[in-house]
Amino acid sequence: MRTKESSGVDRVVIVGVCPEVEAGRFPVKRGVGQVMTVEADVFTECEEPMDVLLKYRRADSREWNHTPMCRIGQERFRGSFRLEEAGLYRYTIDARPSAAAEGGAIDGTVEGKSERWVSYERELPLLVTPVRARYGAWYHTFPRSCGEPGRHGTLRDLQSQLPRIAAMGFDVVHVPPIHPIGRTGRKGRNGVAVAGIDDPGSPWAIGSHEGGHTAIHPELGTMADFRELMTSARSLGLEIALDIAFQCSPDHPYLSECPAWFRRAKDGTFEWVIDPPNEYRDVVGFDYACADWQGLWRELHRVVEFWIEQGVRVFRADNPHTKPFPFWEWLLAQVKDAHPEVMFLSEGLTRPAVMHHLAKVGFDQTYDYFPWKVSKPELIGYYSYLARPEIRDYFSPVLWVNTPQVLPMCLQGKGPRAFASRLVLAATLGSSYGVYGPAFEVCENRPERSGKEDYANSEQFELRHWDTERPGNLRDLITRVNAIRRQNPALQSNDGLCFHPVDNDRLVVFSKTSPDGTNVVVVVASTEPDHTQRGWVTLQREQLGMLQGRPCLVHDLLDDRTYDWSAPRNYVELGPEGPIAHVLAVRI
Amino acid sequence: MRTKESSGVDRVVIVGVCPEVEAGRFPVKRGVGQVMTVEADVFTECEEPMDVLLKYRRADSREWNHTPMCRIGQERFRGSFRLEEAGLYRYTIDARPSAAAEGGAIDGTVEGKSERWVSYERELPLLVTPVRARYGAWYHTFPRSCGEPGRHGTLRDLQSQLPRIAAMGFDVVHVPPIHPIGRTGRKGRNGVAVAGIDDPGSPWAIGSHEGGHTAIHPELGTMADFRELMTSARSLGLEIALDIAFQCSPDHPYLSECPAWFRRAKDGTFEWVIDPPNEYRDVVGFDYACADWQGLWRELHRVVEFWIEQGVRVFRADNPHTKPFPFWEWLLAQVKDAHPEVMFLSEGLTRPAVMHHLAKVGFDQTYDYFPWKVSKPELIGYYSYLARPEIRDYFSPVLWVNTPQVLPMCLQGKGPRAFASRLVLAATLGSSYGVYGPAFEVCENRPERSGKEDYANSEQFELRHWDTERPGNLRDLITRVNAIRRQNPALQSNDGLCFHPVDNDRLVVFSKTSPDGTNVVVVVASTEPDHTQRGWVTLQREQLGMLQGRPCLVHDLLDDRTYDWSAPRNYVELGPEGPIAHVLAVRI
Repeated sequence: MRTKESSGVDRVVIVGVCPEVEAGRFPVKRGVGQVMTVEADVFTECEEPMDVLLKYRRADSREWNHTPMCRIGQERFRGSFRLEEAGLYRYTIDARPSAAAEGGAIDGTVEGKSERWVSYERELPLLVTPVRARYGAWYHTFPRSCGEPGRHGTLRDLQSQLPRIAAMGFDVVHVPPIHPIGRTGRKGRNGVAVAGIDDPGSPWAIGSHEGGHTAIHPELGTMADFRELMTSARSLGLEIALDIAFQCSPDHPYLSECPAWFRRAKDGTFEWVIDPPNEYRDVVGFDYACADWQGLWRELHRVVEFWIEQGVRVFRADNPHTKPFPFWEWLLAQVKDAHPEVMFLSEGLTRPAVMHHLAKVGFDQTYDYFPWKVSKPELIGYYSYLARPEIRDYFSPVLWVNTPQVLPMCLQGKGPRAFASRLVLAATLGSSYGVYGPAFEVCENRPERSGKEDYANSEQFELRHWDTERPGNLRDLITRVNAIRRQNPALQSNDGLCFHPVDNDRLVVFSKTSPDGTNVVVVVASTEPDHTQRGWVTLQREQLGMLQGRPCLVHDLLDDRTYDWSAPRNYVELGPEGPIAHVLAVRI
Repeated sequence: MRTKESSGVDRVVIVGVCPEVEAGRFPVKRGVGQVMTVEADVFTECEEPMDVLLKYRRADSREWNHTPMCRIGQERFRGSFRLEEAGLYRYTIDARPSAAAEGGAIDGTVEGKSERWVSYERELPLLVTPVRARYGAWYHTFPRSCGEPGRHGTLRDLQSQLPRIAAMGFDVVHVPPIHPIGRTGRKGRNGVAVAGIDDPGSPWAIGSHEGGHTAIHPELGTMADFRELMTSARSLGLEIALDIAFQCSPDHPYLSECPAWFRRAKDGTFEWVIDPPNEYRDVVGFDYACADWQGLWRELHRVVEFWIEQGVRVFRADNPHTKPFPFWEWLLAQVKDAHPEVMFLSEGLTRPAVMHHLAKVGFDQTYDYFPWKVSKPELIGYYSYLARPEIRDYFSPVLWVNTPQVLPMCLQGKGPRAFASRLVLAATLGSSYGVYGPAFEVCENRPERSGKEDYANSEQFELRHWDTERPGNLRDLITRVNAIRRQNPALQSNDGLCFHPVDNDRLVVFSKTSPDGTNVVVVVASTEPDHTQRGWVTLQREQLGMLQGRPCLVHDLLDDRTYDWSAPRNYVELGPEGPIAHVLAVRI
């Protein structure tokens, strides 16, 4: 006979606790400023009033805060608290039959038998992430292409671009690695195996005699330039996101200083980084399980801390799946413990389970599969999946319309309408979205080869000059879309997403609703923007907190027109002669 | 820096393990003879072959059996094993990169780094239940009503009924408590507060000077009669299910022998059992948390063991929610540990969370809400919910068409068609179903009062004589339906349930498929059997493993007609002039 559990005292059951990621093994994520809501089934065998408390504390504090949970169903309770500061928290639930507290028994069972609280069996972790980890517009650009034509651009050149980027309404400027680039194995234009004498090499081939992961490529400038860039960015409300690519050119100082940190082939030579089907013959990889793994891990931690000292708050991890999960879990916990305001974006990969596990072990955000979600079923299927509460609890996507490595098939050879349509979709479907900026602004649409997603003359291997003023550029639309995002809280979260029926398989209609329900935006987009698409939209009004039959005006935030959508079904038409999309603020 | 986990060695991730009930806090349930299938996502950060093993053992053994799990998706693995014997088991998963075992590295990462297996963090419990806990037809009857009219029936009278009950194809005969009935507070006919001198009282008011929970009511017979009843039942392939009602008439010997076991009111008197809105003034309740709770619990355990010694293998727990969960969890574990062949059915209650929790703590089966699921949306909604894998993992319903306490509204005042329709529905929708037998056979349809579900002249408070031969009785249909259940493995499990579209809101169409896919039964039932209902059925052929456009013959097992259902849509018509339902064996 078991003792405590079976003594008849612990009659209180606390189950069905929500949210909870893998039974508390990994933290639930929420953003600063959000409200954390917790629900649970709490009951005893008899029907009786219960006192239920939601308890929470900072992980580094022993002091619990508590707030009552209220009955919202037969045995279901709900409580919530506001998240004021980033950092790691713990939460759990205490409960007891109310009768004991009130001094009067509801029935004979409880009287005098449970003066005490029963705690839920787990203290669950909650990671409160910075605002930028939930909501932001990202602009990817290569500093070395920011200069005058024919000249290697610098950090100062990038700095001079910041006001333009800020004016378009972006929040984060993401740059590739800014460190010295190796010579050995350097790749040439379009990724060919042998570089020409003037080829600048890939910024991801980090390290030369000029330094490694804490140095700046001399042609880009100095550490002082970098600090000035950071100051300038901050004054414009921009974050600079740095790329952390933990891999080394064969010329990296680490190879001579700490050769034991690297992977070796059977013949004793250093091993190239292999990420099937790619082989990166300009970089070698760390051995995270080498004898001196603790030394290696500490050094990589030091690299991140170095850049935090220079003011960096946003990091984007390159090829995260070529490093072990325990490494990331440890590194990210270390950094966040000391700097809760710092955030990490994980690059995407073709293995969803691995990508989602990286989010669980601590990445705040992750690239998603937006470039390959083009048709209506693909978009609805994938974003309905990502909108599931149990996925949203740990996975926060950044919808990249394009990246330096991916010119999506749906944009290859296409004109501004295709680019504009994908921009509106990404920027409204996702609270975080990004563009590989200059190439996107000018609708660069040439792949290196037919059937491949690499850009022709990719900036990864050569300098490019972008004439962002050229006719057909999308600056005005981008500026408008980013302004709409800033003015509409509904678009700053992925929590209130709902798809609506429309009787055309090439039209997608969805709404987003702000957490307080006061801001509703309905988006009508076409998956074939080069052809006219017509359809009847049936807005699911009850999903939007609207009554059937009541007047409903919608205001198009893209072209400032207003429509009467009081009828149950409403006609829409998108196409070459008409609007590219509707982004409709609903006046309830 | 953490040590083992973060050393870079434990790169193997095992997540998304299915099945798993509340992170292993409660056992997954499966039946003897079934195949236990386990799936999990197993991966490392790199794309590499994995060795994955499903391990299982009896809980009382230290020896693991293991079977390989095969890759069925990008990172998804599946393994299975057959369940030969009832009892408690444990299962878990071991995995490692294959490269180590093969002696050749897939890439530089793994070579020589993980010669060892990584185990899933939990050893999960699995309860293998007897066949009867998954599949059976139950017949509830009162032995005291089995005699000649005007005479108190006996266990011998019941014994003489067994061949008839067995011939109808039932598997379990459930009787109310057979113990001496108290005098103090005895209730009269129709539950009135004061009994007449000849009123026999409720069998649930257990205990008198003639004995308590291990005695037999003298008017029913002797312990020798009971043992003979058990022998006779077994020879007919029937189980006798005993009612365990842990409550006492004020005349029960326990009250004088162990008065400290009982709940007391403030004035020191024993407390009636209260189960709002009911107050049972003929019984008092145990205090499961009294000072001598261990003595009380042991005694109740002894009661169950006593009846197991007399040959009882099936128990039905009365009012399980008036006892604490830890008591049931302890009692059921004790009994099952010694007697894995014994099973427990939990009575239902109006609080689903409590009912489901009782299933988690160890009840093999539970009454469900079938009596109140009458309309098409109610039936599809509720049984789709119960068919979810995560519910089926622990919850196995018995669909009672009626019980001595519940004459469902849908049968009140109705004729044989209504009874027949509900019988076919319960017996085909549920692998386990039951009838409160004689009253059902003769279509007893009078409630005690309008708007209440109690039977008029309920057997709970008086002797009844049932003329089961009277015209309009349902014996032939019951016999046919039970025979169909025995001949069709599809109807012996709830795992293969699928609802199909039909363009009539009063017709319900569903299929059940046997685990091996070879037996498919399609049922067409009406929710308004007294009116003609017509409709076109669109069989979801791909759900049944059938090809579109191939010939399809269906054979009605109720009336032996055969129909050609090769077309995509097929016409059905049920009603007063036609069949009551279709139970169609599909010939693929």
